[in-house]
Amino acid sequence: MKHILIIGAGRSSAALIDYLSKEGNTHHWALTVVDALPDIVQSYARAYANVKALQLDIFDAQAREQLIQQADLVISMLPAHFHIHIALSCLALQKPLITASYVDKEVSKLTPQIKEKGLIFLYECGLDPGIDHMSAMQVIDNIKIQGGTVTSFQSFCGGLMAPGSDNNPWKYKITWNPRNVVLAGKGATAQYIYKGRYKNIPHHQLFKRLTMIEIPGYGEFESYPNRDSLQYRDLYGLHEADTILRGTLRRPGYCAAWHTFVQLGLTDDTYPVRNVENMTYADFVKAYLPYSEDDLVTNFCRYVNTDISSEIMQKIRWLGILEDKLIGLKEATPAQVVQKILEEKWKAKPDDKDMVVMQHQIDYRLRGEQKKIISSLVATGEISGLSAMAKTVGYPIGIAAKLILENKITTKGLLIPIHKEIYQPILSELQSMGIRFIESGALMEVAPS
Amino acid sequence: MKHILIIGAGRSSAALIDYLSKEGNTHHWALTVVDALPDIVQSYARAYANVKALQLDIFDAQAREQLIQQADLVISMLPAHFHIHIALSCLALQKPLITASYVDKEVSKLTPQIKEKGLIFLYECGLDPGIDHMSAMQVIDNIKIQGGTVTSFQSFCGGLMAPGSDNNPWKYKITWNPRNVVLAGKGATAQYIYKGRYKNIPHHQLFKRLTMIEIPGYGEFESYPNRDSLQYRDLYGLHEADTILRGTLRRPGYCAAWHTFVQLGLTDDTYPVRNVENMTYADFVKAYLPYSEDDLVTNFCRYVNTDISSEIMQKIRWLGILEDKLIGLKEATPAQVVQKILEEKWKAKPDDKDMVVMQHQIDYRLRGEQKKIISSLVATGEISGLSAMAKTVGYPIGIAAKLILENKITTKGLLIPIHKEIYQPILSELQSMGIRFIESGALMEVAPS
Repeated sequence: MKHILIIGAGRSSAALIDYLSKEGNTHHWALTVVDALPDIVQSYARAYANVKALQLDIFDAQAREQLIQQADLVISMLPAHFHIHIALSCLALQKPLITASYVDKEVSKLTPQIKEKGLIFLYECGLDPGIDHMSAMQVIDNIKIQGGTVTSFQSFCGGLMAPGSDNNPWKYKITWNPRNVVLAGKGATAQYIYKGRYKNIPHHQLFKRLTMIEIPGYGEFESYPNRDSLQYRDLYGLHEADTILRGTLRRPGYCAAWHTFVQLGLTDDTYPVRNVENMTYADFVKAYLPYSEDDLVTNFCRYVNTDISSEIMQKIRWLGILEDKLIGLKEATPAQVVQKILEEKWKAKPDDKDMVVMQHQIDYRLRGEQKKIISSLVATGEISGLSAMAKTVGYPIGIAAKLILENKITTKGLLIPIHKEIYQPILSELQSMGIRFIESGALMEVAPS
Repeated sequence: MKHILIIGAGRSSAALIDYLSKEGNTHHWALTVVDALPDIVQSYARAYANVKALQLDIFDAQAREQLIQQADLVISMLPAHFHIHIALSCLALQKPLITASYVDKEVSKLTPQIKEKGLIFLYECGLDPGIDHMSAMQVIDNIKIQGGTVTSFQSFCGGLMAPGSDNNPWKYKITWNPRNVVLAGKGATAQYIYKGRYKNIPHHQLFKRLTMIEIPGYGEFESYPNRDSLQYRDLYGLHEADTILRGTLRRPGYCAAWHTFVQLGLTDDTYPVRNVENMTYADFVKAYLPYSEDDLVTNFCRYVNTDISSEIMQKIRWLGILEDKLIGLKEATPAQVVQKILEEKWKAKPDDKDMVVMQHQIDYRLRGEQKKIISSLVATGEISGLSAMAKTVGYPIGIAAKLILENKITTKGLLIPIHKEIYQPILSELQSMGIRFIESGALMEVAPS
């Protein structure tokens, strides 16, 4: 009997635990789920007969290592900066590890030791990063097998609300960590290459530098550049592509309204707002506008150069951030103030459905001809049950866990799912669960996947 | 015979060394100047018979402590982040210390020990910070002595070129650390209070949020907010002021042009520009603009929303940053690329004169009447001799050194020059050297300073 240890049982772990519990019945796995919060632990213990749920403080090294020692495979679903503690224990105790987070500098340093011990540490195995790598590499590898060369790679992803549930002026609600929604794009200068020209976008211009895409049946989306796209040149082997761009999707109009917050400086997370305990949201916004005796809406419109009747102002006003309502925080950065009002106004309803959208646009040259393939995924889910976000993050991890336990991954070391032996079985099983890419373009005719 | 040790002999030390050498003849001081660069050391040794000039690596703790041990007073003219090494040695060896830099977190932690040992560590004793503190406190203390209450405090300072030498479209040349010119305003969100309203300005809006001032005989200046002005409420005892604003001065038009660089993201210092070794300045600027087949000037104008004939574009084009000239750096952040072209184009000529400008605008209530005092300083100097910048930074330190060696400062601990026993003799001697404030307003009539 194989033992799987899942560390961290927050919102995005639900589909993973559900999947592993069901598969565990067939494969005779023992499943242990640990979290810091007793409520979460108890709810899993009640819901699944074959899941052992325990409370754990992951900083308790002794308790952590005891649990990891008993496991054959560890899955960390904690926030990214906690992974390193788990990774170090897994390395010491020689256990394989899966996470949905980006490879960071700390774990990168362990690369030789992980390989030396013949271990698999599979990172970036959720949605984005995760399914994006797998589905992109499937298309790219197919093109290469045909003898083709990728000349342009653009890839877009977003976690949004499904049609019908996107019923507010922003067409957006929160389906993941709300702090990350506010700080979106703040980590690093966005970098990409477009038609052979390097492009660097500072955060304060990010939401103005949009690309529009369309998903048949789902309409238009807008995209802002996502982090450093140029890393993907080496990662995906795109050495002859003169365009490499990754973007994050929102419904049209979102970015123009969000851009006003960035312009004012409301998404800064580096200093406490003075006097915040006595401030209304209106006072807070005023602190970022030039002094004026005019009313706030007029002053706001003038500063961001829009009209009171614009779609931008409809979104801003609907949010209530220009209203004389006490914020009710004793200490907060600007970003924390914005997060508070978003958590109220962008809260999903129990009967809402969410939607994950991904699209790759890949141009390639094949036997002297220029061709284009567009590969799109739309997955929906239930906010109160298994959300699209939870499924697209959790299922790839669950399937990867099965592959590792069944020794089906021969590559060892610190990996991300760009290897065919990893992405092919995962995409294939996802497809059987209804999480499938629709391809348009010439490639399907040449090499159906 | 008292020994003074000056650590760091760069550009801003010239006037200080000149002053202490002359005063040293009268007061029988021994003066030792140390620097890491042998050329600088030799030039001082040649220029002043009573100055002992030595080469020193300040990270050589033994050599550093040996020199400090022999001194009765230490002056650190190094870049700010080096001071702490000197401060720790001075604390251990019980020597007084003077610097022109802001009190930082590291030296703040030493506050109790400095006081306990009865030492004087006098920080912020140059121009800005330095003369700004002294002259503001002189006015504020005078108002308080009269029974008045400060209701508004605004203070502006800038290091510029004197009329006649400000002969380029920016009316600006480099008279201090060029890196600081590029990174101006990047350290922290500017914060101030204006007519009772807190204001926070993110860096990317800083150069749009201007105040205009006038200095009789010198014309108009524009000012952008400087760091956290609200710290000065407690520091200067401005508890009833509903406006507290400190600003940095430039000649009108400078900020609007500089704002375009900030908008594009050219002043970022956090990441290396990809492919910089093969780039011209034009390529570099293009990397921050949306892709366009239009020529660079047209694309630039459209992005920053100005016309080709505007004063902004005259400044930008004069700089040459839109030209197809190879940058010639192998590795550089955006800020380092900008610094390179500024160092070429904004280089002062040997016969240029520089100018330091400071103005305090202080409103106060006295016996029921609302009054205003405007106190302005203009000091000029020679780029090839003693610059205004070197004199206004160096002389206050030199005079403070004399006060400490003569035991005229009774307050002990980590100090800045807001105490009357410090600022009064310094301002008085500066006045005798021609560095004087001209006051306009009601106060002079009530209490001539």
